Amino acid sequence: MSTNTAPTAGTAVTVIGLGMMGTALADAFLGQGHPTTVWNRSPHKAEQLTARGATGAATVGEAVSDAALVIVCLSNDEAVHQVLEPETENLKGRVLVNLTSSTPEEARDTAAWAARHGIEYLDGAIMAIPPLVGQPQALIFYGGSSRAYSDHEQTLRVLGGATTFLGEDTGLPSLYDVALLGILWATVAGNIHALALVGSEGVTAEAFLPYATGWLNHVAVPFLPRLAEEVDQKQYATEISTLNVNREAIAHLVSASHSQGVSPELLLPVQALIERRVARGHGSDSLSSLIEELRDPAT
Amino acid sequence: MSTNTAPTAGTAVTVIGLGMMGTALADAFLGQGHPTTVWNRSPHKAEQLTARGATGAATVGEAVSDAALVIVCLSNDEAVHQVLEPETENLKGRVLVNLTSSTPEEARDTAAWAARHGIEYLDGAIMAIPPLVGQPQALIFYGGSSRAYSDHEQTLRVLGGATTFLGEDTGLPSLYDVALLGILWATVAGNIHALALVGSEGVTAEAFLPYATGWLNHVAVPFLPRLAEEVDQKQYATEISTLNVNREAIAHLVSASHSQGVSPELLLPVQALIERRVARGHGSDSLSSLIEELRDPAT
Repeated sequence: MSTNTAPTAGTAVTVIGLGMMGTALADAFLGQGHPTTVWNRSPHKAEQLTARGATGAATVGEAVSDAALVIVCLSNDEAVHQVLEPETENLKGRVLVNLTSSTPEEARDTAAWAARHGIEYLDGAIMAIPPLVGQPQALIFYGGSSRAYSDHEQTLRVLGGATTFLGEDTGLPSLYDVALLGILWATVAGNIHALALVGSEGVTAEAFLPYATGWLNHVAVPFLPRLAEEVDQKQYATEISTLNVNREAIAHLVSASHSQGVSPELLLPVQALIERRVARGHGSDSLSSLIEELRDPAT
Repeated sequence: MSTNTAPTAGTAVTVIGLGMMGTALADAFLGQGHPTTVWNRSPHKAEQLTARGATGAATVGEAVSDAALVIVCLSNDEAVHQVLEPETENLKGRVLVNLTSSTPEEARDTAAWAARHGIEYLDGAIMAIPPLVGQPQALIFYGGSSRAYSDHEQTLRVLGGATTFLGEDTGLPSLYDVALLGILWATVAGNIHALALVGSEGVTAEAFLPYATGWLNHVAVPFLPRLAEEVDQKQYATEISTLNVNREAIAHLVSASHSQGVSPELLLPVQALIERRVARGHGSDSLSSLIEELRDPAT
């Protein structure tokens, strides 16, 4: 291991996996003076970090041995198991924090594996792009061992000011992750469809931008508290914007899309869901009632 | 016609169609002291308005004759033609403002009909629910005769402070309307899917709300200017969140949805679009490049 000459402070940490995200994590620890050991399958990815004061470990075993807090951020769940399963003995008694993107099931399986080997485990989901890691607004969800979280909360907060512990269920961070990503994809999809529509008449995205952002800020986001209340109460009756009204309006959207030479494909499942809900006699309900059609699907 | 005893000011207006929206429009004019004539096929819907000072017309002809500015807000385009086509002679020389929800094609056809009969025409789209009509933040788009708009802008602004003229193309208000509604439906769909996902683990919509709103405010909305720039420049290359990265992540979403007993149907077309774009060799592009797949579809 190289000699670390930078001034250090705080808990020693190890970061395994130096893709864009892993590098950003190690960088954030270095920036706050944490003794930081790094490992990556391709060692050249460690060079910038060791130049900034990180300790480059030659093997996973060396990396794990360097710190009581081991962060892993690899390309997927399979890579996590390939890299860490040979090191179970070495990981015993340490805290393993898995920030690799995964499904809730994968996270729970990894937690069970860790428990079998006496490894304290936290699963995490980083809700920020690499350049935002370490910033006050960066949101990272954690789930798993409460003790491990409270012992290391201060250190983990180096990675994101909006660090949030969701409880002992290790599946929740990934679930919140995909739920929020779904909101992003859906919102981006709606905007892309809108830009294709207005673009078909020569309106630039820049010209349409103030309407799109104003609409999201003043109409869509302010609707969410009511949506939440209706969903929690299962009280979907409304007088303002019924499914019957939305059904007519979304037919206009699909028709206008076809006329303008724009595929309506991104919005078709919303139309289908509204049609299905109306057909089941819920035409006087609010859009929030569509949630009832998503639960326990036949598929 | 009944005697109007309320104090009046400004241009006389006629409102044809007294559904929830038409009633809100007439109400806004009355609130600002405009002499307001109203007509509805079922006359009882006029009662509340005449009690507040509106003139209730017995026939469409009477209603049209009462004002140089005639607003029509009916259930659909067919109703507009049924109600107004017998009155073409009477409408000649007046300004007809059509606030009925329609497609861009319907709006342009109605504009052509109006032009054939010497009727000055504006098509409009109300981007607000009835309770917001007349408020400073209420957005209403107009397209059509510039002269009619500038002559009556002050009066039309009574209906919404954010009144906006989009130019001579009478199809644009409806196009902007469906484009913005599409953004709303997509965003609501993403949120409903998210609530179904976290709800499958007993997380309430109320508990998830701060994350959903924070995510939209701090991640989704701030992404829109970059999206707009990439779309306008057709420069889709990115290093931060490529389609390859999104492809892996959205597979997690679909997998997690199935595991949690939640239908992924609302997000499936986004996944399909990402897959299609990646298959065509654009895996290193940003999400914004999906717009290329929506234009000139085979359908």
